Parts: sequence; structure tokens; C-alpha cells
Amino acid sequence: METRPDVQVLVFDVFGTVVDWRGSIAREVEALGLGVDGGAFADDWRARYQPAMQRVRAGERPWTKLDVLHRENLDETLEAFAVAHRLDEAGRRALNLAWHRLDPWPEAVAGLHRLRSRFLIAPLSNGNLGLLARMAKRAALPWDCVLSAEVYRAYKPEPAAYLGVADTFDVEPGRVMMVAAHASDLRAAAACGLRTAYVDRPLECGPSGHRDVPRPTDRFDLAATGFDDLADRLGCPDSLSQDPT
Amino acid sequence: METRPDVQVLVFDVFGTVVDWRGSIAREVEALGLGVDGGAFADDWRARYQPAMQRVRAGERPWTKLDVLHRENLDETLEAFAVAHRLDEAGRRALNLAWHRLDPWPEAVAGLHRLRSRFLIAPLSNGNLGLLARMAKRAALPWDCVLSAEVYRAYKPEPAAYLGVADTFDVEPGRVMMVAAHASDLRAAAACGLRTAYVDRPLECGPSGHRDVPRPTDRFDLAATGFDDLADRLGCPDSLSQDPT
Repeated sequence: METRPDVQVLVFDVFGTVVDWRGSIAREVEALGLGVDGGAFADDWRARYQPAMQRVRAGERPWTKLDVLHRENLDETLEAFAVAHRLDEAGRRALNLAWHRLDPWPEAVAGLHRLRSRFLIAPLSNGNLGLLARMAKRAALPWDCVLSAEVYRAYKPEPAAYLGVADTFDVEPGRVMMVAAHASDLRAAAACGLRTAYVDRPLECGPSGHRDVPRPTDRFDLAATGFDDLADRLGCPDSLSQDPT
Repeated sequence: METRPDVQVLVFDVFGTVVDWRGSIAREVEALGLGVDGGAFADDWRARYQPAMQRVRAGERPWTKLDVLHRENLDETLEAFAVAHRLDEAGRRALNLAWHRLDPWPEAVAGLHRLRSRFLIAPLSNGNLGLLARMAKRAALPWDCVLSAEVYRAYKPEPAAYLGVADTFDVEPGRVMMVAAHASDLRAAAACGLRTAYVDRPLECGPSGHRDVPRPTDRFDLAATGFDDLADRLGCPDSLSQDPT
């Protein structure tokens, strides 16, 4: 950062930034033996994510948490792949919870421990609280607390989500830094006065997927190749001296 | 428990149940050298807590987080002790954050680690999210996530707070157990279908304070002398085999 603002809180996008949603979903789908390509199924399921939230953002339906949207989208994706008859209600419920079981990127947990030694760290995800809490417990993500669009009843990139974090911690927006692998998330955060850190996750969308990368005109405060690199750039002690709790 | 329900989530009252609010506040007040008795000051400040929340519950004022209520109550307590002229705005702001720095009861952290090995654990406190997150970080409380009346915009004992937890984790209320040192909190939780565990904290209110203890007619699922005892009663592995993260 050219200037070093007194950042106190780091909030993280989760799907793609902390965890590998595509690889994790693809593995669960492949394991079901539905005869579909797991990666393609994951891509289709995920493609229904933004349009589903948009109906909530636009006020076309009341606040609906992501577990419910994911389930509706799963039903549609099963139809699109012509395998709806292959998965009953219990199977669909179980597969929907695959989003609670996403695996973190290999260096994510160690990096979060380093970042936690210096900052308050929390997810700020469109995932609901229960999803994020169960994911964190399974993957040992060491959040100081779990924040979510659900707390603010506002799906990112609505300003209320970013500004809600500053209110939660009773700090100016400039004391909060948004960390994300998606430029659109960071642009919306910056517009609310938050600091921004872009983390490159080249494998997020698979070999041929379209990623939400920065444009030449974007001016984020930091760019990092992962959370270890981010911890280096933010001056966090290395992992040998970290507090293991 | 006579029957062993399939409890998945433990939620904890915090002030008095996890942390020693009276001793912690008294120490901070004594350290300021205002010439007042720290314990008496803490008692007066805390006595304004329920009436302040009641105005929110009754709809006499919009949702207001506890940091703000605590600050209004502090101003009144300083007046009541005739020391308002001794503490300026910055001093009041700093003292108000003493509620973010409460010390846990001696066995609380170790007990929570044991309980966490088997259950999702979270606070369900009338304290706001920022207060609870900062307290947890300072005191190393190993919550899986931080829940608060603020998430549900409902101060306990309003049903929406207890039922909100079941909704957050998408479970029946009977899969959630409320843990508290206050019988009124447990009665309200039980009325919503939650399981209940009373934890005795004889020192919560000082040597002569009135405590909210069970009546002979109360039927809570468990009673424990602390979190280690609660972990024993809930069949959690002992601390030697706990996962330190």
C-alpha cells in the first residue's frame, strides 16, 4: 500500500477466495455416480447463484438465505443435466450441503492464522451463517467471528453488507479491508470506503472458466498471490511465531 | 439428562456464565482512581442493563446495540456516584469498552475446548457482535461462530433470539441447548423448545448480590458446576485428547 491505513479488520470473500468451490463440488458430484461431468455440473450450479441473489436484491422476493437458493438452483441443474430422476429428496438435501464442506485452498488456513495474529478476521460471504460456521469448523478456518450477508440482510455487492461490517466493529470503513479474488466485490467495497486486497486464484473456475479479474483501471490497495503473500505484505509475523489457537 | 436428545449446538449466555463481568468491571473502575467502590459501581451499571433493553423490547425505541445502551447507562452511573466531572468523553469511551475485556471464569476456556470437540458452540448473548468478537479474541474463547441478539434484532428473553439459533443452523429447537447461569434465560429457552443446562456461578454477583437461580419447580435438562463438569455430563472427551485448535 502506498499509504498504510490503520486497518483493524480483514473481511474475506469465501467462495473462490478461501475455498475451492469448483473442485469440492465437482468431487462430491462425481462421487454420486450420476454419470455427469462434475466440473460442468458445478459450473452450471454456480452460474445460477448471481441471478438467484439478484431476485432478492431487487426486492422480487423477501430475504432468502443461500442454503435455500442453492437448493432451488440444484433442482434446476439436475433438470438441465437430465438426471433429476437419479436423486431423491434425501439425496438432494445431502448434496446441497456440499457447500458446507468446501475445501480451503492449500495455503489458506496457515495464512489466516498469520493474519489473525495482527487483525480481526471474519468472512463476509453471501453464504449464510450456518453454512459458514459448519465450513469453518470442518476446515479449521480460524475466524474471530463469522459475518455474512445474512447478518445484514444484504447480498454483496449491496453497500449495506460492506458498511455493516464497519458498524459491527464501530470503526470507520477505512479501517476495514475486503479481501477477495473477485474484482467486482472489491470495487463495491472500495466504493463504500473500505480498503481492498485482491488475491489471485487462477484455478477458481477451472481451466476454461471466466474469472472476475481486475481491469487496468482498477486501483486496489494490495494484490497478493495467496494468504501467505498477503500476510507478508501486511507485515504479519511468520508462521513459526504464530499462536496456534 | 433422562433422555439424551441429539443436541448438535450449544449456545451460551456470556455475561456471568462465561465471563466474570462484576470482577472485571470492578477492577477497571478501581484502576481509574475515581474514589468509588468498584464492585458497587459495577452493580449500579449492570442494574441499568435490563431496563435499558426493556425499552427496546417494548418498541419504545428502535433496535439499539448494547455498546450504546452500556454507554448511556455509564453516564447515569457516573452521575449516581457523583463523579461525572471526573471522567471526560475519551475516558468514558474507554471505560465503556471494559465490557469487551471481561475475563472468563477460570475453567471456562478449557471447558469450551472440550465442548467444541463434540458440538457446534456459540455465544447467544445480548452483547453486540463487535463486543463478543473482541472479547473472544482477547480471552481466546474458541467459538465456532459468534451469535448475538444483534443478529436476530431481539434481546433475550424474546423468543426470536432462541428460535433464531435453530433457524441459523437449520435444526429443530430441540437440537439446540442453551447454557446459562440465569434461570430466567433457561426458562425462556425451554419455552421455545430448546434444551437447557444450568451452570452455577456463585460468585457472579459478588458476596451479597441477588442471583437468578433455579426455583424448585424448574426442570432443566442438566445442572453443572462449570464447563468442565458440563463437558463431563455431555460425554465430551477430556482435555488431554482435545484438539488444540
